[in-house]
Amino acid sequence: MQIHTPVLIEAIEARSSVNFFQPGQTLSDRAILRLVDLATRAPSAFNLQNWRFVAVRSPEQKAKLRALASGQAKVEDAAVTFILCGQHPRQGSLPSLLAPSVEAGYMPAALAADLSAAADAFYGGNVQLSRDEAIRSASLAGAFLLIAAEAHGLGACPMVGFDADGVAEAFGLGEDEVPVMLVAVGPAADGNWPQKPRLAPTSIAKLV
Amino acid sequence: MQIHTPVLIEAIEARSSVNFFQPGQTLSDRAILRLVDLATRAPSAFNLQNWRFVAVRSPEQKAKLRALASGQAKVEDAAVTFILCGQHPRQGSLPSLLAPSVEAGYMPAALAADLSAAADAFYGGNVQLSRDEAIRSASLAGAFLLIAAEAHGLGACPMVGFDADGVAEAFGLGEDEVPVMLVAVGPAADGNWPQKPRLAPTSIAKLV
Repeated sequence: MQIHTPVLIEAIEARSSVNFFQPGQTLSDRAILRLVDLATRAPSAFNLQNWRFVAVRSPEQKAKLRALASGQAKVEDAAVTFILCGQHPRQGSLPSLLAPSVEAGYMPAALAADLSAAADAFYGGNVQLSRDEAIRSASLAGAFLLIAAEAHGLGACPMVGFDADGVAEAFGLGEDEVPVMLVAVGPAADGNWPQKPRLAPTSIAKLV
Repeated sequence: MQIHTPVLIEAIEARSSVNFFQPGQTLSDRAILRLVDLATRAPSAFNLQNWRFVAVRSPEQKAKLRALASGQAKVEDAAVTFILCGQHPRQGSLPSLLAPSVEAGYMPAALAADLSAAADAFYGGNVQLSRDEAIRSASLAGAFLLIAAEAHGLGACPMVGFDADGVAEAFGLGEDEVPVMLVAVGPAADGNWPQKPRLAPTSIAKLV
């Protein structure tokens, strides 16, 4: 893994949120699904994978989404703008999600059953905890989506400035789904800002 | 950027949550702060950077944290276990956070003022939206922390199974701070699982 160090660190240090995209660019369905594939390599609690991606890439749907996102041009200019949805963990959903790990031979079936029961007990009936998990999982996947876009030479920009209720209704999200962020992805135009300065690590970290 | 593709993609595909760490290993304060530095390259809404890192690395503090995390051994075995805190956005906090971007010459001062007013209006008085943002920002930083650990050849494991109230009290978190996840980081031991299988992208993505 050590040999990755310079490239991975450079990728983290060079990343910035892209505000200007080359309009009129497109990504193939295959390329879009590959970005989703890589985004879902993010971890999720219990491996719940409680996320869903609406990839908005047709002119009509992009216009609809832009109107719900304060008219931000990047929603339309980007090749695709993802509505990254987190889902409230569903009771009883884990056995089928862990089955491939059991079948692959490294997760004992008894452990999968224990984890499933633990997850159901952890979230059961707790709406706040369930919403927290929806936001956490979708955000983790969103971060991986940013890195995946970068890996393909594409710009990306996460956005929270949108009408969540309007988006949920217009794009048919389920009642247990939260639109956690929009992520615009596509070839970047010129004139974007570099990564904005961050607070010094010593000012936000406490070592104990 | 294209030249990064194979290494970045390999890093995403190879990453997995590490359950077993080599006990007794340590990281220098400098190395810990470097991980924090890279984690905070994650984006945050308005560049709020509403996160804080408690790096738990002394034997006494790790034991305290482990007891609040269902006794999970990795909390103690990892070289450091971060308590990744998200903060409710603070009214009036943005001008000083954007000042370096204004001083660097690429963000107009008027825009920084507009963004600051917009952020205050967006979150003001909305406790749910503020909590959502705390979780979203800390989760984005958490994902970058995982990649940063990988870039240093270290294993990492995010965890949600802990007593949030107990951690907040034991480690002196502020009233506006949410412990969003623990992230154990350190040299991995043998015997860890590979990345668990994920749902097919076509089953969780809708292209419109």
